[in-house]
Formats: sequence, C-alpha cells, structure tokens
Amino acid sequence: MSDLKALGLVCTLKRGGGPSSSALLGQQVLDALAEHGCKGELIRVADRQVAFGVSKDEGDGDDWPAIREKMLEADILLIATPIWMGQPSSVCKMALERLDAELGETDDEGRLSTYPKVAVMAIVGNEDGAHHSVAEISQALNDTGFTLPANAATYWVGEAMASTDYNDLGSTPEKTAGTTKTLATNAVHLARLLKDAPYPAAG
Amino acid sequence: MSDLKALGLVCTLKRGGGPSSSALLGQQVLDALAEHGCKGELIRVADRQVAFGVSKDEGDGDDWPAIREKMLEADILLIATPIWMGQPSSVCKMALERLDAELGETDDEGRLSTYPKVAVMAIVGNEDGAHHSVAEISQALNDTGFTLPANAATYWVGEAMASTDYNDLGSTPEKTAGTTKTLATNAVHLARLLKDAPYPAAG
Amino acid sequence: MSDLKALGLVCTLKRGGGPSSSALLGQQVLDALAEHGCKGELIRVADRQVAFGVSKDEGDGDDWPAIREKMLEADILLIATPIWMGQPSSVCKMALERLDAELGETDDEGRLSTYPKVAVMAIVGNEDGAHHSVAEISQALNDTGFTLPANAATYWVGEAMASTDYNDLGSTPEKTAGTTKTLATNAVHLARLLKDAPYPAAG
Amino acid sequence: MSDLKALGLVCTLKRGGGPSSSALLGQQVLDALAEHGCKGELIRVADRQVAFGVSKDEGDGDDWPAIREKMLEADILLIATPIWMGQPSSVCKMALERLDAELGETDDEGRLSTYPKVAVMAIVGNEDGAHHSVAEISQALNDTGFTLPANAATYWVGEAMASTDYNDLGSTPEKTAGTTKTLATNAVHLARLLKDAPYPAAG
Repeated sequence: MSDLKALGLVCTLKRGGGPSSSALLGQQVLDALAEHGCKGELIRVADRQVAFGVSKDEGDGDDWPAIREKMLEADILLIATPIWMGQPSSVCKMALERLDAELGETDDEGRLSTYPKVAVMAIVGNEDGAHHSVAEISQALNDTGFTLPANAATYWVGEAMASTDYNDLGSTPEKTAGTTKTLATNAVHLARLLKDAPYPAAG
Repeated sequence: MSDLKALGLVCTLKRGGGPSSSALLGQQVLDALAEHGCKGELIRVADRQVAFGVSKDEGDGDDWPAIREKMLEADILLIATPIWMGQPSSVCKMALERLDAELGETDDEGRLSTYPKVAVMAIVGNEDGAHHSVAEISQALNDTGFTLPANAATYWVGEAMASTDYNDLGSTPEKTAGTTKTLATNAVHLARLLKDAPYPAAG
Repeated sequence: MSDLKALGLVCTLKRGGGPSSSALLGQQVLDALAEHGCKGELIRVADRQVAFGVSKDEGDGDDWPAIREKMLEADILLIATPIWMGQPSSVCKMALERLDAELGETDDEGRLSTYPKVAVMAIVGNEDGAHHSVAEISQALNDTGFTLPANAATYWVGEAMASTDYNDLGSTPEKTAGTTKTLATNAVHLARLLKDAPYPAAG
Repeated sequence: MSDLKALGLVCTLKRGGGPSSSALLGQQVLDALAEHGCKGELIRVADRQVAFGVSKDEGDGDDWPAIREKMLEADILLIATPIWMGQPSSVCKMALERLDAELGETDDEGRLSTYPKVAVMAIVGNEDGAHHSVAEISQALNDTGFTLPANAATYWVGEAMASTDYNDLGSTPEKTAGTTKTLATNAVHLARLLKDAPYPAAG
C-alpha cells in the first residue's frame, strides 16, 4: 500500500542545506512512515521565501502557496523543529501562523480542508524544551483542524545545559527510535481511518 | 446508538457542588456528546479525596482508583478546567499527573490502555488563558496515549482583566456553543473509528 | 531627569508602517516611560531585514547588529507583540532568538552585558493568549540576563473568539491604561537602581 | 550582614519528608543565599494541609495562612518544583493559586504587599520541562507582584526520556552549581536594593 502522502516541514533556522538535527529527526520520521506505505517529502522552510503573515498568500515572492499545495495533498503533516530557549523555532512559528489561514477554508458543511489530516511532531535540541514545544505546536495544529494520533511526537534533548547536537550523536538513541516507530504506526493507522471516513458535518 | 461512554473530570477548585463555570461548560459538552449517542458522567475532582502522586493508586483514602475505573470504561475523556493566572487549575494538573501512571499500562504488544480513547477539553475563565490551557492539557493527554480529534477544545473567556463568570452570562455565547457542537461531532466520530479499529502494534 | 533610554521592539507581522495594535500599545508604554524621564524609540522588526539565527551578526544584509547596538545602549527593553494562535508572533520569537547570542557576551567577572537592563512587555490580540505570551517572553528575556520589574507586562485582548483590533477600539481600556502606568513606574525605578548599583560578580 | 530572609516552598508531590530532588535543589539555593547573609527556611507544601483556592484563607484546617505569614516576612521567595509531564507540579500550581490572593492586598498607594520581594526558582526533573516550568512560574509570580532578578532560575534535567533523579546523581553537576551561585548573588543584590528603595506609587 502506498496510498498515503506525508509532508514534513523542517523548521531549522539554518539556510543552505547543511547538517541539521531537525532535518535528521524529520527524515527519520519520514522513513518510519514509509515503512507503512506512506511516501513523504521534507521541505526546509528557511530555504524558501516564506513571508510573515496569516493569509494563504502574502503576494509577490511568497513561497508559502507552493508549500500549501503540498500540505493540502498530504494526509500527514509533520512539523520538525529545533528548540531554542526551550521553545519551538521562529521558523516553526512562522509556518504555524500561515496555517492559521486554513480557519477560513471550509466546505459547504463548515468543515475545514485540514480535517481529514493527521499531524505529528519531531522536536530536537541540545537541552530541554521538547514537551513545551509539543504543547504549543499541538495546540496550534489542533486549532487549525488537524487530528493528533496517540503519541504524536518524537523528540530528543540532552542533559540540562548540554551542547551536543542530535546529528553529532553518532547513533540514534534507542528511546527516540522506539518513539519514532510508535508515532509512525499510529499516524498511518489514523490517517487511513480518517481518509476512508472523514468527519461528518457538525450537528 | 448509545454505544459510547464519556467521562468528564471537572477541575474547579471549589468543593461542595455549588455553581461552577467549568462544571457548566463540561455539562454542555456532555449534552452535545449525548446528542450523538454518547452517554456521559461528570466528576468534580475536588469533591473526591484524590491524592497527589503519579501512581495508579496512592493507597489508603485515595479516591483516584475509583475515578480511574470510570476513565478506563470511557471512550471519550473530557477535561473541564477553570483558568487561574492564565493557566489550568492545580486540580487539573493533579488529575493529569495521575494519568501519568497509564504510561506503565501496556498490553502484550506495548500498546497503552488509553490508546483507543479520544480526549477533549472545556476551558473557561474570567479572562485570558484558554489557548495555553489547551496546549498544556493536549500535550499531557497525548503523552499518555489519548488521541485528539480536530478542534478538540471548546472555551470561553472574557475581555482582558474582566471578572464576569461564564455561569453568570445568562446565555451561552454563540461562538462557544458552535465550537462545543463541532467538538462533540468530531469526538464521537473519531471515538467510533478507533473503537472499531484500534491502533495496531508498533512495527 | 532624562537619564534613561528605552528601546521597543514591535513584533507585528505587518511590514510597511501601517496601523498596528502592537505598535500602538508599544507607543503607549514608551509614552508612559517618558513621563518618568526615560526617552525611547520603537523599531518595527518586520520592516528591517533581520536574519533567522542565534548569533550577534548573521552576516551580509543582516539588520540585527544595528538593532543590537540600540539594545545595548538602552536601559529598558520593551517587547511589544501581537498574539497569533494564543502565542507570541514569529517575529517576536526571531528577535528573542537573536538575544540568545548575549549569553556569550560576558565581562571579566562573568556578568552578561544585559545584566543591568530591565525588560518589559506589551501584548495585544483579538482574543486570548496574553498570559502565555508573557510567560514565554519573560522566560526568554530572563534567561538572557534581563531583570523583570514587578508587573512587567501590560496587555489587552477581547472576549473569546472575538475579532476586534486594539487599534480600532477608539479609546484605551481603563484597566490596560492603568497597568501600563504601573509598568512604567516600576520599570524606571528598577532600571535606575540597577544602573546605579549593577549586579556584582557571582561568588 | 544577615538582614535578609528567604522562604522556599518545596513543591514535591511526596508527603512525609523522604528524599526529594526538589527539596535538595531548594536547599542548595538556600545555602547559596546564606553565603550572602540571607537566612532561609524550606517548607514542603505537600506536608501541610493547604486548601485549593484563591483566597488568603480558605478557613478551617487551611495551613496556607501560616505559610503566608512567612512569605510576607521574607525578602526572597523561592519556588522549588519537580517536573511532571514537562510541567511544574500540581502542588506548585496550588501554591501559586494561593498567591493570586495577593492581588487584593494593596497599600494606600495601590502597591501590592509583594512589591519589594524578589522571586527565584529551582526546577528539577528526570528529563525535559525546566524552561517551560520557569516560564509559567515566572509569569505567575510576576503577575502577583514579585520582581525577578537576572537569571532567576536554576535547574537540572536528564537526557530525553531518562529516569535518574537529581538526588541520586551523587554529586551536583557543575553547570547547575554555577547557575545556583549566580542566582543567589543576583537575588540578594536585588532584594537589598528593593528593600532600601521600594517601588514608588504609580503616577
């Protein structure tokens, strides 16, 4: 079965395609989804010209509309973000703000275009901030119509005030690897259920 | 169809069954769920003797085990909390901490006993704090194995620094009522899907 | 006395200098500080070319170093942000991430260059999210060496799911005006104390 | 000089005085404050009968009024909390809710009785959640009139999904020890400044 599509938005602050811990963990999530027949693509948001704003299209030179097209085609949206100061990155916030526009996109029955989609998260930092990042991103994604499968997030952080990057660890910590696997199993299962049986009109 | 059960934990700080805005909004959620064939019950947590802790049973005099039995029987868990200082109540936090024990409750395939369950939220305060409360509660519930339907939360708050209670408004604000209705439709749909087709073992 | 300087970073998503609620509340804070002899300046961050990153200078075309110079000269730093999805704006997060670089700027005694500075906040949105925005910004500013006076934040938000902008209210709500006044009194008092008697070396 | 007093509220969920990581880190903060002439006392909140509520005195059997007396006598308030699910403990939230009552305690000039006081934090967990705990507690303490010195928090957490307790580490991690020392230096300096020169009336 290769019936499902995933889109991963990598929210590293770094431009230019160099090593990135959030890109690495994001790719690991896509790989785990692929084992369940879900094909995916990663986009590094900072490498595009995404405008600040809360509309679908901020006009000339805004790369968000092209990203949005892929989001609308995807069954699973992955937000992969680094942690800075214990919080998700500004690039992540910028992407979430663009998703705010989806609140205006409803069908004749008042259902958002995001409704049949499942969202998952990959959070990574030198130290501390994963749970809070999950909290903020979960709330923003759920507000804008996404469904969150059980154990929707995978993460890694080091000990307090540590400075090692995830992509310098050499190998994937076992607990993070196991969490990624569970996330993928649950996300694909739920995305298939909702694709076959979308939410009905409220009433 | 009356195949589904809901349990609502009302997390007001007030003991003794008097008027409570979170009890009111919680009841409105249960009523909306009932229209979709989901029977529910509200428990005011502060009126029970729930012990601080992170285990299933903190021993003599702990009322959590009885609440937990009902949670395990429910298909939908509702957390209804007041906002204090822009944050969910301490009673709400106490209940979430007790749910932390569910991380140790897995079947032979490693699946949590909470996995087929859907969680929703009802948040109410004089002013400000609903989105943050949703964020914290979403994260804690998702960590412990619950699935969140699209638009999993309904809420009401007044203008900045206002002091009117939700249960003194006289009538239910239209936007809150509409949000409650959507929440119920989505929660029941998702709970039925997951009851019929639970998450498979990770792999 | 006109011995103190303030810098206000306005974190609206809007470019181009049009009406902005966060600019308005930010200006009201500067006006209140001016009554205590503290001169100030507002910068709309989205109108500058600030690069994503966590260093003092991200290189060619980065406007942050010029903003940073003004921040270093200021005794009081004001962060004025709109709320989107119950959270501070991505532009605000981008500015806070740039402040992260100050953790590397210490004198011979290990004291940060931000140590004698006081930070305050002005938060504004159509609805809900002020307390959480204060929480996140307070933590980030305090982590990077700023001191927070009692009642360091002023804010306004409308009722749940409302859509009126602060700069369309016609007049300033009394409670917000009073809070702004208290903020200014406390910030100036504390900034003078710390300017006269900076934190000693740790020991 | 032994002119200053500190009160530390330890917010472990555990009753009965056994080993507690938050009690240990809290004591280390008090020891560091003592080196600057500030005498302190720790109270384990869960060992008292503190009622849920937001008033100064919830009546018969409520131990908060006695704790509040010590808080009012203290120049520095320390909140020491464990992390559960990435968040401060419910006992911590319960204590913060009781501090909410201080918003009603003003002098003839409208100044809160908490105004000359400085607040600091000690956060500890097996893994992840320190920054978020600092954010929430900072906001609540600042709302209720406390001033936050530069670097107002010390913390320790382990690597992602780790399970070692701080009080089983054997020795204090160097970075946490250094942070505790800086916290104490800054807190005492600021508390002395504000004791000698309290905030003036707003105007």
